[in-house]
Amino acid sequence: MTSEEFKQWGYRFVDWAADYIAHPEKYPVLSRVSPGDIRKQLPAEPPAQPESYEQMLQDLDRIIVPGLTHWNHPSFFAYFPNTGSEPGIFGEMLTAALNVNGMVWRTSPAATELEEHVLDWLRGMIGLPAAFKGMIFDTASLSTFHALAAARETITERSVREDGLSGPDAPRLRLYASEQAHSSIEKSVMALGIGRRGLVKIGTDAEFRMDAKALEFAIDKDLREGFRPFAVVATVGTTSTTSIDPVARIADVCAKFGLWLHVDAAYAGSAAILPEMRHIVDGVDRADSFVTNPHKWLLTSMDFSAFYCRRPDMLRRAFSLSPEYLQTAEGDAVTNAQDSTLQLGRRFRALKFWMVIRHYGVEGLRDCIREHIRLGKLFASLVESDPRFEVVAPVPFSTVCFRLKSGDADNQALIDRVNASGKLFISSTRLNEKLTLRFAIGNARSGEAHVRAAWEEIRSLNRQDAKGEM
Amino acid sequence: MTSEEFKQWGYRFVDWAADYIAHPEKYPVLSRVSPGDIRKQLPAEPPAQPESYEQMLQDLDRIIVPGLTHWNHPSFFAYFPNTGSEPGIFGEMLTAALNVNGMVWRTSPAATELEEHVLDWLRGMIGLPAAFKGMIFDTASLSTFHALAAARETITERSVREDGLSGPDAPRLRLYASEQAHSSIEKSVMALGIGRRGLVKIGTDAEFRMDAKALEFAIDKDLREGFRPFAVVATVGTTSTTSIDPVARIADVCAKFGLWLHVDAAYAGSAAILPEMRHIVDGVDRADSFVTNPHKWLLTSMDFSAFYCRRPDMLRRAFSLSPEYLQTAEGDAVTNAQDSTLQLGRRFRALKFWMVIRHYGVEGLRDCIREHIRLGKLFASLVESDPRFEVVAPVPFSTVCFRLKSGDADNQALIDRVNASGKLFISSTRLNEKLTLRFAIGNARSGEAHVRAAWEEIRSLNRQDAKGEM
Repeated sequence: MTSEEFKQWGYRFVDWAADYIAHPEKYPVLSRVSPGDIRKQLPAEPPAQPESYEQMLQDLDRIIVPGLTHWNHPSFFAYFPNTGSEPGIFGEMLTAALNVNGMVWRTSPAATELEEHVLDWLRGMIGLPAAFKGMIFDTASLSTFHALAAARETITERSVREDGLSGPDAPRLRLYASEQAHSSIEKSVMALGIGRRGLVKIGTDAEFRMDAKALEFAIDKDLREGFRPFAVVATVGTTSTTSIDPVARIADVCAKFGLWLHVDAAYAGSAAILPEMRHIVDGVDRADSFVTNPHKWLLTSMDFSAFYCRRPDMLRRAFSLSPEYLQTAEGDAVTNAQDSTLQLGRRFRALKFWMVIRHYGVEGLRDCIREHIRLGKLFASLVESDPRFEVVAPVPFSTVCFRLKSGDADNQALIDRVNASGKLFISSTRLNEKLTLRFAIGNARSGEAHVRAAWEEIRSLNRQDAKGEM
Repeated sequence: MTSEEFKQWGYRFVDWAADYIAHPEKYPVLSRVSPGDIRKQLPAEPPAQPESYEQMLQDLDRIIVPGLTHWNHPSFFAYFPNTGSEPGIFGEMLTAALNVNGMVWRTSPAATELEEHVLDWLRGMIGLPAAFKGMIFDTASLSTFHALAAARETITERSVREDGLSGPDAPRLRLYASEQAHSSIEKSVMALGIGRRGLVKIGTDAEFRMDAKALEFAIDKDLREGFRPFAVVATVGTTSTTSIDPVARIADVCAKFGLWLHVDAAYAGSAAILPEMRHIVDGVDRADSFVTNPHKWLLTSMDFSAFYCRRPDMLRRAFSLSPEYLQTAEGDAVTNAQDSTLQLGRRFRALKFWMVIRHYGVEGLRDCIREHIRLGKLFASLVESDPRFEVVAPVPFSTVCFRLKSGDADNQALIDRVNASGKLFISSTRLNEKLTLRFAIGNARSGEAHVRAAWEEIRSLNRQDAKGEM
């Protein structure tokens, strides 16, 4: 393919992307296909000979797009929404064109240094101390996994990296997180060989925040019973209700027992770029590690998790190995990412985030998050104005947990109807053993009109439901 | 930004990418910047207000590009080269525009089903049995990590996911791989809580292939000493020399002892798409898991590792958790990726690979790999024709290990001079305790002229070196 042909097709793909992101609302939010519908439209065998981009574009429209759940749709209010932003799209195109592998500094110094630089920018935007060193992972799950692997190396009884966790004198490690913490914490302890039983789930208060007294009690009890506590995960913005654990008080407990404190702020950490929301990271300066995901609420395309660690030596202790084929002349004078990670290969993810920050500016990013928080409170007030519904958790950010007061069956019927409408997509959780609807705002395209329309749709579908039952 | 503005800037970025990939040879292959050079050109604080794409493009040329090591350069012969291909670039642009998260089937059915479909295509291209179920990870390190986590669940003495590896009755797990196996195996045992000492490195023969007899002996010995062998990693295409472990014989040993067999074919597995190279996967049909990386040798942009597992139930046992906020109506009738992975968030990586296969066709991909293998043998013959040099390992693929016969100092001086030239980039390793130069061909832009020119440059720099010393 000549350079001119590349450009002509590139323009076609840009046009396609432009048209797609201009009108994601023309698709049903939640895909309507049934299991297997996509695969049965695809040929069983790969083509032996080249096919045209024209065919691919046709198949994209005909097969792929109807099979997507449109995260870019302004009425995507499920899980934690994200945004396929313009600078993110351009940045990914460049990353793929450059296609460098930043596994060590010399294999692309700019990849390593831009990563350090933009994560320092974000660190400053959030207000974390300079002692936190940042690096990018794909997801918060991997960030947390690395945090806990580093934490595991702090125990002094043995070298876990060398000797593992087995043997007659092996400590039985214990990790603590609230019962509202993300499933990735549990997956991490499973993967790390600690086992699910090594995760102690601490109860929460009426607002779904970790009970720091109960934490202290649990650690004390475990110590008496011969377990080896090593870390605590506090959450700023839990997945179900976006509750904020009392980080400062938890930091006190960690300090008392000498435990690693990891703060999971995957969703909500981004909100700390607002001066008026900075309080959510109170106490985080005393944490050992912290994660927030710009691919959730900072207009950065998937995937991009920002991980910070105040003890990078422990991260290197957990993961560094220097096989002959990876040794470089620069040695320790530079950051060689692979010394601190399970992965070796490393995409140049920093580029898109650099472009996102520059395109919007810090104020632009703040405006977006500030507006989402305002809309979250607006939605909560709309729910509260209807006596059939209740808001069942505080709304510190842009996520609202609510339900029909009448019971689980009605709530299930309502969410099924809402999501089948194709007009909006919400998710659910369970709080105090009751099915709860979850309305989360986080896409840059979601405005007040979408939020109000969503509420009208929910109310209207509930009325139809009630009618059908009469 | 309006749709028209998006298009106009998108065209500019396409033009930039087109010009970049048209002439990567105009840059020094290995970046010439010194540590800190990039960061000191970047503002300490992020911009409060938006900046223009024009400024970003200027900074890209002025700051970023000189700081890159150009993996797209046709004379990049270090590590395992890759290719920033055109369909890979277009595919990544689309992935970023769609920006879906395929964590469970319903959050984008097409992402899940296209992933399964293209991995079935590749499975067939390589000739693996249909029982192997594929999924995409970012890197082979993560694929192998998941394989070994699954393997760990096969032990019947305890549930590792629930109870971990500690406790008085905990088995002391042992894993086996050759001394030439990749560092990711070692990182995996460290991460999994098994510890480095749990990895037994098996000796290799004169051609750097695992000694299956030594493997059997080591397992026997460990059993007698009370260890618990659980898995073996065989490598098809080791990192240093691309040697091929005797998989069929290793499979016999695994069958005898009931161990999980994982095959790491991260680099070389792609070559099995050539009928004349199909023999490299002999015995893999008896493995439990297998990994190969299309982002190395199948013209797919970073990152994309294809992982196959014949026992997906064990993968789910290792990683499945279903928190309330992720339960879906489809349940087990569909593949919910997050049930089998440490990660939750999941980019739509299948799209680019689908486009790569369709753009080149299977025959086009074969032509590329076939030519690289021919060029590898050509380079080896050039080295052998010079009495000062020796080829120090067989060349089954496109990677040549060679050295000056005169000693480590001369070889170090030569590689430093070669890489400082900016004309080509090679890496090194250590074989039989001798510094060894490594010349790997794997970029679609590398042709015979580049290989011949590289050899002339190496010879010429060696002559200068010798002269300098006189």
